[in-house]
Amino acid sequence: MKETPYKTYLEESELPQVYYNVRADMREAAGGQDHAPMLHPGTLQPVTVADMEPIFCTELAKQELNTEDRYIDIPGELIDFYRMYRPSPLIRAHFLERLLDTPARIYYKYEGNNTSGSHKLNSAIAQGYYAKLQGLKGLTTETGAGQWGTAMSMAAAYFGLDLEVFMVKVSYEQKPYRKTVMQTYGASVVPSPSATTEIGRQMLAENPESSGSLGNAISEAVEKALTKEGYRYVLGSVLNQVLLHQSIIGLEAKAAMEKLGEYPDIVIGCAGGGSNLGGLMAPFMQDRLTGKPAPYFIAVEPASCPTMTRGRFAYDFCDTGRVTPLAKMYTLGNGYIPSANHAGGLRYHGMSPILSQLYHDGFLDEARAVEQTSVFEAAIQFSRTEGTLPAPESAHAIRAAIDEAIKCRETGEEKVILFGCTGNGYFDLSAYEQHINGSMTDYIPTDEDLLRGFASIPSLAGIQ
Amino acid sequence: MKETPYKTYLEESELPQVYYNVRADMREAAGGQDHAPMLHPGTLQPVTVADMEPIFCTELAKQELNTEDRYIDIPGELIDFYRMYRPSPLIRAHFLERLLDTPARIYYKYEGNNTSGSHKLNSAIAQGYYAKLQGLKGLTTETGAGQWGTAMSMAAAYFGLDLEVFMVKVSYEQKPYRKTVMQTYGASVVPSPSATTEIGRQMLAENPESSGSLGNAISEAVEKALTKEGYRYVLGSVLNQVLLHQSIIGLEAKAAMEKLGEYPDIVIGCAGGGSNLGGLMAPFMQDRLTGKPAPYFIAVEPASCPTMTRGRFAYDFCDTGRVTPLAKMYTLGNGYIPSANHAGGLRYHGMSPILSQLYHDGFLDEARAVEQTSVFEAAIQFSRTEGTLPAPESAHAIRAAIDEAIKCRETGEEKVILFGCTGNGYFDLSAYEQHINGSMTDYIPTDEDLLRGFASIPSLAGIQ
Repeated sequence: MKETPYKTYLEESELPQVYYNVRADMREAAGGQDHAPMLHPGTLQPVTVADMEPIFCTELAKQELNTEDRYIDIPGELIDFYRMYRPSPLIRAHFLERLLDTPARIYYKYEGNNTSGSHKLNSAIAQGYYAKLQGLKGLTTETGAGQWGTAMSMAAAYFGLDLEVFMVKVSYEQKPYRKTVMQTYGASVVPSPSATTEIGRQMLAENPESSGSLGNAISEAVEKALTKEGYRYVLGSVLNQVLLHQSIIGLEAKAAMEKLGEYPDIVIGCAGGGSNLGGLMAPFMQDRLTGKPAPYFIAVEPASCPTMTRGRFAYDFCDTGRVTPLAKMYTLGNGYIPSANHAGGLRYHGMSPILSQLYHDGFLDEARAVEQTSVFEAAIQFSRTEGTLPAPESAHAIRAAIDEAIKCRETGEEKVILFGCTGNGYFDLSAYEQHINGSMTDYIPTDEDLLRGFASIPSLAGIQ
Repeated sequence: MKETPYKTYLEESELPQVYYNVRADMREAAGGQDHAPMLHPGTLQPVTVADMEPIFCTELAKQELNTEDRYIDIPGELIDFYRMYRPSPLIRAHFLERLLDTPARIYYKYEGNNTSGSHKLNSAIAQGYYAKLQGLKGLTTETGAGQWGTAMSMAAAYFGLDLEVFMVKVSYEQKPYRKTVMQTYGASVVPSPSATTEIGRQMLAENPESSGSLGNAISEAVEKALTKEGYRYVLGSVLNQVLLHQSIIGLEAKAAMEKLGEYPDIVIGCAGGGSNLGGLMAPFMQDRLTGKPAPYFIAVEPASCPTMTRGRFAYDFCDTGRVTPLAKMYTLGNGYIPSANHAGGLRYHGMSPILSQLYHDGFLDEARAVEQTSVFEAAIQFSRTEGTLPAPESAHAIRAAIDEAIKCRETGEEKVILFGCTGNGYFDLSAYEQHINGSMTDYIPTDEDLLRGFASIPSLAGIQ
């Protein structure tokens, strides 16, 4: 396999023309039954498009609830935009393999070669497109580490839409340049909690020093969308529509591997809200769901926010303010407070309902929690050999990929490992600095910490 | 031409196997005469490899003085490394063309898709390779905006060499994350002027508050290389060897354009020390030097550091400490103090002797000075349409490309414009912030400012 190129690019003409909707195959594998639907927080009945329309663009609400259509056409205007930065490269990690002296063949799909710096742009531009199509004036959203906010700012600028980003206050203060990129693309960026929403003012009244959380910021962005004429809310992960758009990652990866005559034995992705892993594994999961040979799937999460490895599979709110619909998912409870020492993203209390269901049903094989110092060791090893400084989120997947490759060295197995390298770490250098100067620590929540979070999961009589 | 893809990638197998040495054709065009050679600062005689060996790696010293060999083989190990991030894409700026409503076809060679963030890695890895080959222990260098320091850190990490980077103090303080990236790759980073060298101590004694300059930092790095066993000095621009390595940009660009059936009418590059423009235009300049039809060449520099547009073509030192050889080049004088308000790179007092000679002889058609607020306007226009946030340096070329495309709109000419987009602007967001908040100003040196700089150009009896 020495001749495998380092980078495999599909031609622009080979860009996927459809998104793949894994829920159609999940439904079929379940004998035509839909899995636990999202529930309206007031009525506890399954939400409808009409319920969602005040918050979401209508077409996106339809996608959110669509469990019928296996493939959904990608509009031509979106394909045009994708051609600006896609197909993204599938990279054979020759240098890393050599360093690890492993018989494994390691591939990664690299999504960092665009100014948003991550895969988030794949869904941002789709959401922007449907908002424009609907004639909206603007959008609201939240951002934690900042990748999603940047991606959405690029998309909004492209379609001439206003964008208001609620940025978790601790990130707003620690990552001033993230804010500047978003402003360069014309977005207005507000630290959350803010005094610009009812729920933000409540949060500030309770705790004026609050450094914010993703759950808080979601509540603020949703409230703003509901109260501002011609605005809707967009979200960068967790939702079914986001995983749908992100399937472009997996579709490209699968096509590129086919060109090389390869098929992965293991697929690895970091999992915060699930958008990247959900997208990367989708077409391979289709193989699993339809009874074909399929890879072993590993979701990697931070030990400090162990949603899948230690959370509960239950209906919970997607936000702290409890204004969103209820989703059946692995959750630490909407009141779970992520560790302040945690670097980067992946600290959301819940997990994509799709990934949660697949994990619960055994289709997604393994969830693995890793500690952040070992994640940064992997990141530095990777950056020095493969030349790319990865985002801390991506480095979770790198950690697992390195560990699997080392196992292969021990067993002599020539496994094919595919992982998602979701983005670059150029805006996460304060975390790298902590690692270099030795001030980075690990944090594992105690059982008591988790119980406090679980207490915020609603008790729904007759439902859970 | 609607069908031209957005991005044209050569195959890895099409990577150039040789560097192109434009000086061989310059010599031939001059009837077999070499142009003004570099002079030893003590003897004022042309420098020899033996003169340079204490400072430079021997093989690089040979390349520096080589005016005979038109092509120089790229070693296999270097090609392997290049495959990690090259060939870089040639991008058709479809979105920008549409915005400008121009009949021109705009292409740019984008060098920002690697962790160093710019084209600098092309020469850094070559210089690291020859240092390793010579069995050196380590290297010293300087960095201004930080791109070269980052690139050299990656190269040193790859070859297991020590690296000491003297970083201009104002950048060290304003760009802490640049420092962190270099440290992530294992480099030691020292703010310049520093107390670690004789010349740095002198500078600090004269002005304890000095914010440093590239010329100062070069002096310190050279002194350190001369006084540390097993160390040599490396430089990221200006030198002939650097332009040689950077010819890979132009060779790839020319090959990719040939695939598209295109040939540029205009080639545009930003020019600080000349490494990018020199590399991009080299194979097209070969056409000019050998009497074939060739593009119109434009070098774009900042109005605040107008080396080619207002400088003198004279022998000058490459550094402020006057320890380097003398080079015949366009210069503002080694004592020229660049404006403190200037963002980004391109503020070196001199210019590549190769570019200088070509400009002096009329082969390089035009040098153009642009003001920084108009540069950032172009940068923001570009980032919002083409999706890539450019480095301020690259934005100088973007400014000129946009202006040329607008001229085409007015004349109706379907010119093919090729420019170099040397890197991304992720580490230059404080400058973008200045532009957004309106605090960025322009600066044009007065004739008196220039005269003060010219006074530092040495008077060499019988030579100039």
